[in-house]
Amino acid sequence: MVMKQSELYRLLQQVAAQQVSVEEAALVLKKAPFEKLDCAQIDTHRRLRQGVPEVIFGEGKTAAQIISITEVLQKDGSVLITRLSEEKAAALQAHFPITYNAEGHIALVGTFPAPKGNIVICTGGTSDIPVAEEAAFTAKALGNRVTTLYDVGVAGLHRLLSHLDEIMSARVIIAIAGMEGALASVVAGLADCPVIAVPTSVGYGASFGGLSALLSMLNSCASGVSVVNIDNGFGAAYQASMINAAFPSSY
Amino acid sequence: MVMKQSELYRLLQQVAAQQVSVEEAALVLKKAPFEKLDCAQIDTHRRLRQGVPEVIFGEGKTAAQIISITEVLQKDGSVLITRLSEEKAAALQAHFPITYNAEGHIALVGTFPAPKGNIVICTGGTSDIPVAEEAAFTAKALGNRVTTLYDVGVAGLHRLLSHLDEIMSARVIIAIAGMEGALASVVAGLADCPVIAVPTSVGYGASFGGLSALLSMLNSCASGVSVVNIDNGFGAAYQASMINAAFPSSY
Amino acid sequence: MVMKQSELYRLLQQVAAQQVSVEEAALVLKKAPFEKLDCAQIDTHRRLRQGVPEVIFGEGKTAAQIISITEVLQKDGSVLITRLSEEKAAALQAHFPITYNAEGHIALVGTFPAPKGNIVICTGGTSDIPVAEEAAFTAKALGNRVTTLYDVGVAGLHRLLSHLDEIMSARVIIAIAGMEGALASVVAGLADCPVIAVPTSVGYGASFGGLSALLSMLNSCASGVSVVNIDNGFGAAYQASMINAAFPSSY
Amino acid sequence: MVMKQSELYRLLQQVAAQQVSVEEAALVLKKAPFEKLDCAQIDTHRRLRQGVPEVIFGEGKTAAQIISITEVLQKDGSVLITRLSEEKAAALQAHFPITYNAEGHIALVGTFPAPKGNIVICTGGTSDIPVAEEAAFTAKALGNRVTTLYDVGVAGLHRLLSHLDEIMSARVIIAIAGMEGALASVVAGLADCPVIAVPTSVGYGASFGGLSALLSMLNSCASGVSVVNIDNGFGAAYQASMINAAFPSSY
Amino acid sequence: MVMKQSELYRLLQQVAAQQVSVEEAALVLKKAPFEKLDCAQIDTHRRLRQGVPEVIFGEGKTAAQIISITEVLQKDGSVLITRLSEEKAAALQAHFPITYNAEGHIALVGTFPAPKGNIVICTGGTSDIPVAEEAAFTAKALGNRVTTLYDVGVAGLHRLLSHLDEIMSARVIIAIAGMEGALASVVAGLADCPVIAVPTSVGYGASFGGLSALLSMLNSCASGVSVVNIDNGFGAAYQASMINAAFPSSY
Amino acid sequence: MVMKQSELYRLLQQVAAQQVSVEEAALVLKKAPFEKLDCAQIDTHRRLRQGVPEVIFGEGKTAAQIISITEVLQKDGSVLITRLSEEKAAALQAHFPITYNAEGHIALVGTFPAPKGNIVICTGGTSDIPVAEEAAFTAKALGNRVTTLYDVGVAGLHRLLSHLDEIMSARVIIAIAGMEGALASVVAGLADCPVIAVPTSVGYGASFGGLSALLSMLNSCASGVSVVNIDNGFGAAYQASMINAAFPSSY
Amino acid sequence: MVMKQSELYRLLQQVAAQQVSVEEAALVLKKAPFEKLDCAQIDTHRRLRQGVPEVIFGEGKTAAQIISITEVLQKDGSVLITRLSEEKAAALQAHFPITYNAEGHIALVGTFPAPKGNIVICTGGTSDIPVAEEAAFTAKALGNRVTTLYDVGVAGLHRLLSHLDEIMSARVIIAIAGMEGALASVVAGLADCPVIAVPTSVGYGASFGGLSALLSMLNSCASGVSVVNIDNGFGAAYQASMINAAFPSSY
Amino acid sequence: MVMKQSELYRLLQQVAAQQVSVEEAALVLKKAPFEKLDCAQIDTHRRLRQGVPEVIFGEGKTAAQIISITEVLQKDGSVLITRLSEEKAAALQAHFPITYNAEGHIALVGTFPAPKGNIVICTGGTSDIPVAEEAAFTAKALGNRVTTLYDVGVAGLHRLLSHLDEIMSARVIIAIAGMEGALASVVAGLADCPVIAVPTSVGYGASFGGLSALLSMLNSCASGVSVVNIDNGFGAAYQASMINAAFPSSY
Repeated sequence: MVMKQSELYRLLQQVAAQQVSVEEAALVLKKAPFEKLDCAQIDTHRRLRQGVPEVIFGEGKTAAQIISITEVLQKDGSVLITRLSEEKAAALQAHFPITYNAEGHIALVGTFPAPKGNIVICTGGTSDIPVAEEAAFTAKALGNRVTTLYDVGVAGLHRLLSHLDEIMSARVIIAIAGMEGALASVVAGLADCPVIAVPTSVGYGASFGGLSALLSMLNSCASGVSVVNIDNGFGAAYQASMINAAFPSSY
Repeated sequence: MVMKQSELYRLLQQVAAQQVSVEEAALVLKKAPFEKLDCAQIDTHRRLRQGVPEVIFGEGKTAAQIISITEVLQKDGSVLITRLSEEKAAALQAHFPITYNAEGHIALVGTFPAPKGNIVICTGGTSDIPVAEEAAFTAKALGNRVTTLYDVGVAGLHRLLSHLDEIMSARVIIAIAGMEGALASVVAGLADCPVIAVPTSVGYGASFGGLSALLSMLNSCASGVSVVNIDNGFGAAYQASMINAAFPSSY
Repeated sequence: MVMKQSELYRLLQQVAAQQVSVEEAALVLKKAPFEKLDCAQIDTHRRLRQGVPEVIFGEGKTAAQIISITEVLQKDGSVLITRLSEEKAAALQAHFPITYNAEGHIALVGTFPAPKGNIVICTGGTSDIPVAEEAAFTAKALGNRVTTLYDVGVAGLHRLLSHLDEIMSARVIIAIAGMEGALASVVAGLADCPVIAVPTSVGYGASFGGLSALLSMLNSCASGVSVVNIDNGFGAAYQASMINAAFPSSY
Repeated sequence: MVMKQSELYRLLQQVAAQQVSVEEAALVLKKAPFEKLDCAQIDTHRRLRQGVPEVIFGEGKTAAQIISITEVLQKDGSVLITRLSEEKAAALQAHFPITYNAEGHIALVGTFPAPKGNIVICTGGTSDIPVAEEAAFTAKALGNRVTTLYDVGVAGLHRLLSHLDEIMSARVIIAIAGMEGALASVVAGLADCPVIAVPTSVGYGASFGGLSALLSMLNSCASGVSVVNIDNGFGAAYQASMINAAFPSSY
Repeated sequence: MVMKQSELYRLLQQVAAQQVSVEEAALVLKKAPFEKLDCAQIDTHRRLRQGVPEVIFGEGKTAAQIISITEVLQKDGSVLITRLSEEKAAALQAHFPITYNAEGHIALVGTFPAPKGNIVICTGGTSDIPVAEEAAFTAKALGNRVTTLYDVGVAGLHRLLSHLDEIMSARVIIAIAGMEGALASVVAGLADCPVIAVPTSVGYGASFGGLSALLSMLNSCASGVSVVNIDNGFGAAYQASMINAAFPSSY
Repeated sequence: MVMKQSELYRLLQQVAAQQVSVEEAALVLKKAPFEKLDCAQIDTHRRLRQGVPEVIFGEGKTAAQIISITEVLQKDGSVLITRLSEEKAAALQAHFPITYNAEGHIALVGTFPAPKGNIVICTGGTSDIPVAEEAAFTAKALGNRVTTLYDVGVAGLHRLLSHLDEIMSARVIIAIAGMEGALASVVAGLADCPVIAVPTSVGYGASFGGLSALLSMLNSCASGVSVVNIDNGFGAAYQASMINAAFPSSY
Repeated sequence: MVMKQSELYRLLQQVAAQQVSVEEAALVLKKAPFEKLDCAQIDTHRRLRQGVPEVIFGEGKTAAQIISITEVLQKDGSVLITRLSEEKAAALQAHFPITYNAEGHIALVGTFPAPKGNIVICTGGTSDIPVAEEAAFTAKALGNRVTTLYDVGVAGLHRLLSHLDEIMSARVIIAIAGMEGALASVVAGLADCPVIAVPTSVGYGASFGGLSALLSMLNSCASGVSVVNIDNGFGAAYQASMINAAFPSSY
Repeated sequence: MVMKQSELYRLLQQVAAQQVSVEEAALVLKKAPFEKLDCAQIDTHRRLRQGVPEVIFGEGKTAAQIISITEVLQKDGSVLITRLSEEKAAALQAHFPITYNAEGHIALVGTFPAPKGNIVICTGGTSDIPVAEEAAFTAKALGNRVTTLYDVGVAGLHRLLSHLDEIMSARVIIAIAGMEGALASVVAGLADCPVIAVPTSVGYGASFGGLSALLSMLNSCASGVSVVNIDNGFGAAYQASMINAAFPSSY
């Protein structure tokens, strides 16, 4: 168990008061390696600095479980709930004022922070939009401004090229595509910023549930691309938010 | 065993001469289903119509084996030898006047036919060129004019777009790429003709010997793309040649 | 953003009227690389030349979404809708006069063009027919005459051989098979034209959802075979239509 | 199209009657390679010799389709229908007198032939029994005597060893197992006859739908083992029946 | 440790002589379950009945190791050594009179038995011949007559069909093919006997070291096909020999 | 068939009584190799020594089947039933007094033995708990004391480190995790005892049903880790129980 | 072909001089969609802004090829050459003053820019160091300060924890690991910045050339992780450099 | 950086001497969470208790690197070096007195401890012996007595059954096998102790480098089996040693 701050104080006071010998105190501090970690400090520190909401992965949890976890967490700030079905969202709504995005299956308990900077989110097709909505909602909940460019896949290159301005001036781009996943390479070849690629499970046959797009994105011949798990819009937005936060406010 | 033409003649003459009854002759002809196939006819027919050279797959054959097969085949026309190492090519050169392409590891014994039509062959990177050379050499040996656009991969889209003219006016395109294989989709999105995609084993790590490019091309979101085996430049050129041959000469 | 045609005219008129200097105009035209693309032109051009209908991939879209997209697209011509369930087809029928193929799950809003040339579509078994129907319907919607040879798989070779005439005289063949996918090789060995192979997800156990047939077709030892995605009857027909269109009308 | 027997007769009669010259007749017979196949002959021949019933793969066919196919086929003998659900079996029963095995999902329209020889069918566990029942029913429908040894997997070796007699004196053994598929190797190490191994999709996790058992069986370190597709009890029984038929009756 | 025959005799003699009580003897026999197996008996029994040679898998063993094992085994009959490189074969030749097949990398120490029956071995291409030679040599060493049909792959169907006689009258066929592995299905569709399919590692790209042919053969739509490991010519011949042996001699 | 104990006695008595000659008795004992195994002895022996309950794998068995098997087995002790749905558990409850764990889908008919020693079971996330409950229940049914540390995954390392005491003093640990499965390595790096890792199918996308965690655990860079099948909580507990039993009671 | 700047000027001058009508000029500009892209501008623009060196992928290129490419590129700045063997590096050294890192197989022609910010690069084991050196060298060549923490894998957690300071205060971290790849999750759980994970091909058996680590990292349960291709130290450093560049200089 | 023990003492002494206030000391101790871990203590503790030698993974390290690491480590006890080629072993021998096992590619610098308990190591074939030797050598270096049963694979079950005594009385068994890996299940079915299974990369074709054996072992239908990485003899022995150490000495 973690040594509490008060216990540490008391121990040191006893040393100062000669009630505990140096050897005994050293023994206590040494005996349990790792135990002295004031672990909670880490998380608290992070939340304070970033205003990051707590996150609940809703899949596989009952509405009742999500409600009781949310009750605990929302005392310290807003709570983001991913992979939340419409049914569970409805159940949640009876307990908290929530903002729910049905397409992205994602909800926020609490208020959105003021948006800063800009994250560009583009998709190859319309079927990739649910993943993009998860990403966009997450990014907004983490305090980012978001620009969405949907259905700009490489089979109709002109649609993508008509948004060159947004792409070439972005700070960070999330490129979401299923099937052959070529969007990430093309976007990264045009852009001058980190591109986070999200393969989606959209497709059939030899797309093998997103494997095709995943491999394609990992093998991107363009520099500046990294990849997250299949359909992981949340993860892409989380990292994109970290990158966006690095920019000075006046940029 | 296949009934020889002379045997068929003799049998029919015996029927005409009443030396063999109709029933007996029918029995002979019926007895062995399939046997009456004058099989050689098929191949001959094809060669006559197309002037297609015979093809030898050189890999796994010794120089001596290739020489003796070539000796037989070249009596009836030119012979194309694929996957031919430089050493074996040198051994061959002592016996026949050959044209050898070292990069594509491919040789022709005989003369190139006059080029007709046009096949556009483009590659994603410079490492894909050996496969492209196999394709280009094959296409020329089969009587096609060839335009090559090398190193026009999607990470530097401007290089590809600077060749829009060739792409948009092509009859058939061979798109060759390793890594993420996105070239096929982008080219097919721009072109208005069949695109035959060739994944290459170029790459490392999660390219898994060409699997990444293969899956990517099979999942192309652009219409008009079909795919051949990894590194199969010959196969792509063979089908492209068939397509090019379909066009009327004055086109 | 794409420069509109009217803007380009106005700019040039201002140059002609000396209201804008050459330098200023050049700057405008140069400043935003890529921006001057009159993108819509490409698609329009293609449709005009080919009479190709617009295509909607119906899977994953609601009936309402399909209806509203169709409303927009059908103004400029016919609309082909693939992967359309019977329920959605019924909903569509209330809005447009459609031709629906229940086996192929495919519909056309508009009229079929006059059929030209000929595309041969053969399947290994009866279970592959839904994919073949998708291909046949697509081919007809794109203006091709279609000959179907169903259930001519290699386990009963005589069934296939009894159709030698159709196979040996075809312009382009679509070979559709699941399980071991051997049909493509056998057909390509007999035929003298491009063969587009479609692996299907028919089978069980080690067919792994079509992977077995896919690999088999990619490794075809016959020349002239290329492959599309598992169950992609539409894609095969689209490319086959391009090839068929290459032939002179009188052929 | 296949030349009919009557046409062949007429042609030969015309030759005999000097109404058709030898050259003309030869031309007709030669012109269409392959066409003269009296294909039906093959199947008929096989059925006559073996009394093998026709087989319908029931999966993916409606009850109505199965009934109409059965109507045609049962005129020439019995009909075996595999992968037949209980619902469809009930529908069939209204039209034909059928014997149905619910566990093996398999039915016979017609009567079982007298059993000859002996095929031993053993399974690793009780969950493999449905596949074994498909095999046993098929074997019986093809005229074989069958001995079943169920649940004799290698984790309880004594159960298998208590049947050494049956195993060591068998003519042909079908070894059916999921999970690690070790049964085939152990049985083949004890037996002195061909062992046909059937991997089953029984298991979870890293059994990957039967892949584990399939690979295991293909890599058997015992001689005399060959393998059929996952869950393919029918295929194993079909080949086993061929082997059993090779033995002289008095054996 | 296995109880020796002499020990069993002695124990029973002591029982008969009343020197050991029934209870004591029962205890000895019961105490160690499994231990009483006179295991050697099994193998001896099998060898006597079949005249089967001992087999050494040569790969991964040094010439010295193979020589010393051979020395022991050849006392009881002939010895078959598979996967034996030419270098090791040369080393062996200094110690024993061996018959070596360089293409099949296989040797026999001892004499070939008189050939009985007939096993047909066919290959798709010339590159599959080494595997076929391993099979043919094994089959001969096990006392079978062998007919080889090499390079009769499905891409040139006429070559295969010109051997219909051999195929339709075979007792058992070994079909060996790499790449798409379609040979097995086509042969099994024509033949009326068990077909043992051997996928080979011949090919490149998406053949994945024989996986493509393996899956193709497992999914064969023809009845009567079973499969052994990739390149396992020995295993196929071993099972084929068992099947051939089942036929009565006068057949 | 296995020789019964009474038969062995009778045979030996006949030898002692000179009614059966030594040669005859030896023949009987030798004739059927393997047959003399008193197989049941093994299982009985094991149960007596360990008090291990019989185990039924409930998946794929009907409630009726489970009930009838349980009726037989529970005569000799308690019965553990894994993968038992709530419906089947309810049906069982009507026949036997059972303890059912709904989360772990596992039940015990009979009483739990007194707990000995200690097995630590930790999970990476809350979604892994069902597998952990299967393991915990099994361990208790086998007579082990259990300590559970749930949701101590490596993404929040402080949660894991706050339980250092339990981990560093454990006899054997079961580490259960899905997704990236890193828990096993981290725990094994801290602990000084065998760690049995259980990958779970928890996750999505590139977790491929537990494959990711499985590979991760097999490649653990920490010594002392072994792995069981995906989701196999039962198997891990069974082996852990064996290890725990090795310790002297006073430890 | 791309319209040159001089041609654009001339055209506009002709419009201004009324020598070309507005309509004609518009036609020229419109006729070839895409053609007007002054593509080179993009790359130049990027290099100017970032001072990014040109990059050559050395693998598969001869020393001669690399030298001639380098000669062209180094006129405009420094050149980074990855995957460069020692032999080729030696050949290069005769032509240019290069800095070569033998472990990372990477070289720079030109001078390193002044280092800014900080990128933390950590590896799981010593075998991962070559990939880390490629990353570190790349990062330095792109103008970043680099901190390396080698051999801090999770099996010895204390080594990692002793560097908590560097990890918790980093701007961006590159986590490089083979085998089970758990380092990325643990680091991301501790850090408060983007973590770019690089799986390495280090390992054997079920590491499958880096696949295990790749899947593990993609499934990381920690937020803020993205992944690049196996062994792609360059790609990770390139993206990390982009992120590091986002921070204001005084940070 | 880790706080040294002397620094901790000094700090506490300063508190005791009132030279440092309680607040200041608490700040120092709290400031860097995790930093106070006296990490080395863990490893030391473990070594003291177990007498476990340090381990070096020799693969991918030069002889010089191994020598210098060994020099440091052998001061505190013996050093085990795995995956050590004969060449490197020879180089090592010039510096330290080592015991080298050429087959297992493993060496010990230092002396073997007195052997305790017993670990049974069995292999399926002779080709698995190198992995078994790695395991046996490791086990001995960790202070265990070892019994080896080589070449007792399931294809010759009698060889395995003749060692029933050793198997049924073992404390822990390491079962090593390639190909179909059935040994583990059979052994675990007979034994009454933990079985650690080691798949080996022995085999060809569909063994896929050990994958077949790995899956087979993970799916073992016998209870009490866990699995380590392919060819990981060291890892199996390490865990087996932990289990063996659990037994009381007098057992």
